[in-house]
Amino acid sequence: MSKGLPKRSENYSEWYNELVKRADLAENSAVRGCMVIKPYGYSIWEKMQRALDDMFKETGHTNAYFPLFVPKSLFEAEEKNAEGFAKECAVVTHYRLKSDPNNPGKLMVDPEAKLEEELVVRPTSEAIIWSTYKNWIQSHRDLPILINQWANVVRWEMRTRMFLRTAEFLWQEGHTAHATENEAMDETKQMLDVYATFVEEWMSVPVIKGFKSANERFAGADETLCIEAMMQDGKALQAGTSHFLGQNFAKAFDVKFQNKEGKLEHVWGTSWGVSTRLMGALIMAHSDDNGLVLPPKLAPIHVVIVPIYKGDEDLEAIKAVIMPIIKELKSYGITVKFDDNDAYRPGWKFAEYELKGVPVRMAIGMRDLQSGQVEVARRDTLTKETRPLEGIVTYIKDLLDEIQKAIYQKAFNFRQENMFKVDSWAAFEEQIEKGGFLLCHWDGTSETEEKIKELTKATIRCIPLDAVEETGTCVYSGKPSNKRVVFARAY
Amino acid sequence: MSKGLPKRSENYSEWYNELVKRADLAENSAVRGCMVIKPYGYSIWEKMQRALDDMFKETGHTNAYFPLFVPKSLFEAEEKNAEGFAKECAVVTHYRLKSDPNNPGKLMVDPEAKLEEELVVRPTSEAIIWSTYKNWIQSHRDLPILINQWANVVRWEMRTRMFLRTAEFLWQEGHTAHATENEAMDETKQMLDVYATFVEEWMSVPVIKGFKSANERFAGADETLCIEAMMQDGKALQAGTSHFLGQNFAKAFDVKFQNKEGKLEHVWGTSWGVSTRLMGALIMAHSDDNGLVLPPKLAPIHVVIVPIYKGDEDLEAIKAVIMPIIKELKSYGITVKFDDNDAYRPGWKFAEYELKGVPVRMAIGMRDLQSGQVEVARRDTLTKETRPLEGIVTYIKDLLDEIQKAIYQKAFNFRQENMFKVDSWAAFEEQIEKGGFLLCHWDGTSETEEKIKELTKATIRCIPLDAVEETGTCVYSGKPSNKRVVFARAY
Ligand SMILES: [Zn+2]
Ligand SMILES: [Zn+2]
Repeated sequence: MSKGLPKRSENYSEWYNELVKRADLAENSAVRGCMVIKPYGYSIWEKMQRALDDMFKETGHTNAYFPLFVPKSLFEAEEKNAEGFAKECAVVTHYRLKSDPNNPGKLMVDPEAKLEEELVVRPTSEAIIWSTYKNWIQSHRDLPILINQWANVVRWEMRTRMFLRTAEFLWQEGHTAHATENEAMDETKQMLDVYATFVEEWMSVPVIKGFKSANERFAGADETLCIEAMMQDGKALQAGTSHFLGQNFAKAFDVKFQNKEGKLEHVWGTSWGVSTRLMGALIMAHSDDNGLVLPPKLAPIHVVIVPIYKGDEDLEAIKAVIMPIIKELKSYGITVKFDDNDAYRPGWKFAEYELKGVPVRMAIGMRDLQSGQVEVARRDTLTKETRPLEGIVTYIKDLLDEIQKAIYQKAFNFRQENMFKVDSWAAFEEQIEKGGFLLCHWDGTSETEEKIKELTKATIRCIPLDAVEETGTCVYSGKPSNKRVVFARAY
Repeated sequence: MSKGLPKRSENYSEWYNELVKRADLAENSAVRGCMVIKPYGYSIWEKMQRALDDMFKETGHTNAYFPLFVPKSLFEAEEKNAEGFAKECAVVTHYRLKSDPNNPGKLMVDPEAKLEEELVVRPTSEAIIWSTYKNWIQSHRDLPILINQWANVVRWEMRTRMFLRTAEFLWQEGHTAHATENEAMDETKQMLDVYATFVEEWMSVPVIKGFKSANERFAGADETLCIEAMMQDGKALQAGTSHFLGQNFAKAFDVKFQNKEGKLEHVWGTSWGVSTRLMGALIMAHSDDNGLVLPPKLAPIHVVIVPIYKGDEDLEAIKAVIMPIIKELKSYGITVKFDDNDAYRPGWKFAEYELKGVPVRMAIGMRDLQSGQVEVARRDTLTKETRPLEGIVTYIKDLLDEIQKAIYQKAFNFRQENMFKVDSWAAFEEQIEKGGFLLCHWDGTSETEEKIKELTKATIRCIPLDAVEETGTCVYSGKPSNKRVVFARAY
């Protein structure tokens, strides 16, 4: 009864693409590299947004909105940032279309409506936001500024994949301004912790927190902190980043404040973001050859109930017992779908809800009714058991909590089994082909990192915050090193 | 203690602009015609979004997301729609910047990165969405499709004003597809009712529901329904529109379905939207020369409490009494700010919270404490009274409900006083200069409508749904007419 998904073991990449489409999460659009996020996929994203937004507000942030467009002259002000994004900028050059005199019924760009200054569609908003903060900040009393924005951004990527890398994507970007370096660094770390908590507790995906190497840093940041997750093919996925911007944007946009002693200083900044890429992480971390596996906290439907019946009389008997149970489940915030659509057979429905990743399925027929029982199936383990109807609500409530944890534990165990201390170059080359995270000594140079990438496509995913100090030698160059970093191939 | 706002009676337009800025709602940005929505303004918009989103979901809609860009060839497919928006389209023509060889440190558009087909930044999403629906709809079983999108859109307006008319704005756009004409028309009307309910019950702004005349219809629609509100200067503001698209987009994008009889038919469509323009309506409908007046349901802060004290001991005594009250208020979902910031004097704070439109202010000093009382000030009426602390929570709860209604009633009375039946052209010309809604007979022709607009800048705001049938003659042409329509100058 599987919907004929490709198998992960045979073609992981094709399995992912097909799953995204068949589970109604997203599809490619008529615009190169841009996707349509379908209702079922979007409802998962909405749950992510709500949870993250609550966490941002609990940590003192408020939302605001800044323009989609960045005038070129502002965009280029912070040189490293500009250089980092210049190659993937969509640029608005005209503000009008007109009838094409050579093609009746068609339009053409009106050459007379050329903008004096081109507008970059924001690939990220530091430039437009810091040019605004300049007017908001005079004194230490104006600080900190703790703002988040939910928005769309555009990065013209050449090779795109739904959710993982798309020309347009949805995200949130926090942009904060502080009076001191320490405060900005604390904010950078705090928001990394918020992301880690969200990804682990809501998405059930374990992450490693760490610093990016200079090569992988955000263009314009002094430090980039990140969380890295392992997908089921052993590749890494960067699930969120939090940047310590130092005074770079404050200097580029001349944002100064009068400190308590009356002296002018440049402001310290941070920025941090997660995007619809998290949808890709969620899908690839847990799902199986039957379809999606969703942690209950992010599942649009928690429980589906499929009645198994012959005629209206049977259905009414089932409903009489089930409806009060549904009502009680709903009172606990549990989303229930009762599917008595008779255009489809139960087996078809079972496969469909497996594909959609509904965490718990209940099936009840006339014999169950007589014996006061119900069949309960778990999506994550694909196991079934028969349970008494008596006490079923408490059982389901606990089961959803258990599933949330079990999915995390499974992903955690998988990651532990696929992290390897690697101490020789031969072992590195062998292991990287098999996948997983390689914990290796590294000599700290960009040259070595680049060489390793060239040879194996592996990059340094992060220098873990909790890396243990130990003496060792770089896995590639043999030079001395005092801690291990995480190498992997990545999405 | 007013923050020196211009007076409405002296310069309504300047009053509005200054209020938007000083109340920290929004400001102009570095991008022509685009605004920055500041945290305080955005938090009101968030409350609007949440309420509307709940109403959309209760009426069976789900959210999704479609691309920001529309390829020119799709954009031009529905000719009337394309023609209507062509003159205000921002167009992306290139996808890369490069270093400018003549300006070190500067960037330029890379001429080699010209798109084969230009991309229009969506001014509205019918084209991209109907090109997608084509693939989603084969059978009557695929209908209806009931989707909403929260998004930014761009319309290159020449004269812009914060919230009312900006090049980029935030909105929601519903796009539905139906098997029958009746069902689509019912949806069109249902969503107009949802908007009317929201604007009246949440924003406390009374509206007139009606049809647009052909001249004012959405480009590509067969009918446009709208809600029209009256601002304090007597001008009209269109607060929301719901369009019956007929089969226009289905035909342009060849979207057909097999009906129950197995025959192919074109699909029927609707679209409907409200935008950050509602913020402008909210501000202009209620606010006064002291600042914002917000209906409690949309106020980011419901109650501000200002302690009046000399030293820490006083403050502690006040807190001991007030903190349990705050806790109880919060348990009812009431948002309370306790402002004991000693950098500002109470009088300054009073003016500040008046400017920000906080519905209720409580002030409490040592004498109040001793007599078990508190001063309660209403923002809408600017009245104060002394109330016993005993039972204050219930009192405040009821007071917020009363304010919500009182604000509506005030706006309703104002509108009633400024609606006039006008039956001669001389009276029309005289009244239109004074403002208000003019209820007039109209001969039903575009020529008359255009002539009246040319002479007076007044347009037909709507043909009310509840217009009474009566015989009369057109206020301009003298030709026969069977009902009155609403003429006004409009934002
Ligand atoms: Zn400077
Ligand atoms: Zn057709």
